[in-house]
Amino acid sequence: MCQLLGLNANTPTDVVFSFTGFSTRAEEHKDGFGIAFFEGRGARVFVDAASARHSPVAEMVRRYPIKSRVVIAHIRKATQGRVALENTHPFQRELWGRHWVFAHNGDLKGYAPRLHASFRPVGDTDSERAFCWLMQELAKAHASLPSVEELSATLRELAPGIAAHGSFNFMLGNGEALWTHCATQLHWLVREHPFRSARLADEDVSVDFASVTTPSDRVAVIVTEPLTTDERWTPLTSGELAVFRDGARIL
Amino acid sequence: MCQLLGLNANTPTDVVFSFTGFSTRAEEHKDGFGIAFFEGRGARVFVDAASARHSPVAEMVRRYPIKSRVVIAHIRKATQGRVALENTHPFQRELWGRHWVFAHNGDLKGYAPRLHASFRPVGDTDSERAFCWLMQELAKAHASLPSVEELSATLRELAPGIAAHGSFNFMLGNGEALWTHCATQLHWLVREHPFRSARLADEDVSVDFASVTTPSDRVAVIVTEPLTTDERWTPLTSGELAVFRDGARIL
Repeated sequence: MCQLLGLNANTPTDVVFSFTGFSTRAEEHKDGFGIAFFEGRGARVFVDAASARHSPVAEMVRRYPIKSRVVIAHIRKATQGRVALENTHPFQRELWGRHWVFAHNGDLKGYAPRLHASFRPVGDTDSERAFCWLMQELAKAHASLPSVEELSATLRELAPGIAAHGSFNFMLGNGEALWTHCATQLHWLVREHPFRSARLADEDVSVDFASVTTPSDRVAVIVTEPLTTDERWTPLTSGELAVFRDGARIL
Repeated sequence: MCQLLGLNANTPTDVVFSFTGFSTRAEEHKDGFGIAFFEGRGARVFVDAASARHSPVAEMVRRYPIKSRVVIAHIRKATQGRVALENTHPFQRELWGRHWVFAHNGDLKGYAPRLHASFRPVGDTDSERAFCWLMQELAKAHASLPSVEELSATLRELAPGIAAHGSFNFMLGNGEALWTHCATQLHWLVREHPFRSARLADEDVSVDFASVTTPSDRVAVIVTEPLTTDERWTPLTSGELAVFRDGARIL
């Protein structure tokens, strides 16, 4: 199984602290990692088929405070699909003139959806097939970019059809919002004023968020297993689709 | 104007030497850079809206010898579209279950092609509009992934329609081949056995390729302005579409 990390903020925020703790877990999840940053409409996806503990790309991400309002990261322990760049999450496609990024944790057994439109998998993971099917069905449901509310309603209709095939924890993002679907395990919290300090569960690292934020900042963090030991994380329940915008859970 | 660098090799090859010289030119071309590496079917695109001279992403690329058979790099001096991540080349799309990467040097005046299919620009450059139109027309011309020869024939039909709008030097790649179209300026060479040493034009750096290659290696390098002072570069002529596969020019 893999692990997922998502961030959504109301102001461009760097993910160095969270990614540092998250990538420590790559000792076990060693079959590649990836992280996508949205900056306005632009997106960039850094992937490596090497472990996030040792990859020079991951090291650059830990040192370079890229500021973003939507981030999706994934560390991979291969279940389906060999260890190769084309099988490394997050996956990316364009729809309605926006970039879409998707990462999945879980295992979909015998999942072979009918892909008849313009989204085709490049690699051979169940995850990329699921992403292509979601994009295809979203494109059929909406002629142009819908509101976050409309998109969330469509995703709530589509997700159970995939989740019936196995375990389907996923994160989907565009530059505006972050959608997270829980099958087995996802936790979230919102950091906002008054900010406190927090200590990573996986590394001997603390940060005092009060010293690096302004009172109006707000950041939601969603992750497979809680990243810190001294904050209160809320688990999502199986089948729950949580939507984050401007650093808050909505809908 | 921008500058382009492409590499195509018959064995996975790193681009550290060429990119080191190329990124030196970012002093003038400071409005972002990008580099795409194909590794098998997989692709990764590193982009930054900062100059390739100072970007931590570019520094990582210069230090991390990613081995690839098709590489496309671009340093940007903005003509159309503001300095932003979504306007930074190379651009990427998926078609027929393959990744496609595109970078453009030039300026297309008043270019507004009819985009009626599933490829839409995310940013606001003439370059991304040209790429979306090429992808749309390739998708109409071929129901599934055609041979390199067939694709080249289609591109030879399509390129003049865009080139009529201005200056259209471009590079297009998938995991198999590299297509380069010259409007005003592109130079190429092939390095093969017996390998010699070469000295960068822009930096005081030499490399003895004989010490880092095997006799069967072959690498084509295509670039706006010759990268080295002691090798023989061949200019492409205006309107010429050159195709590279396995480190050689074909067709």
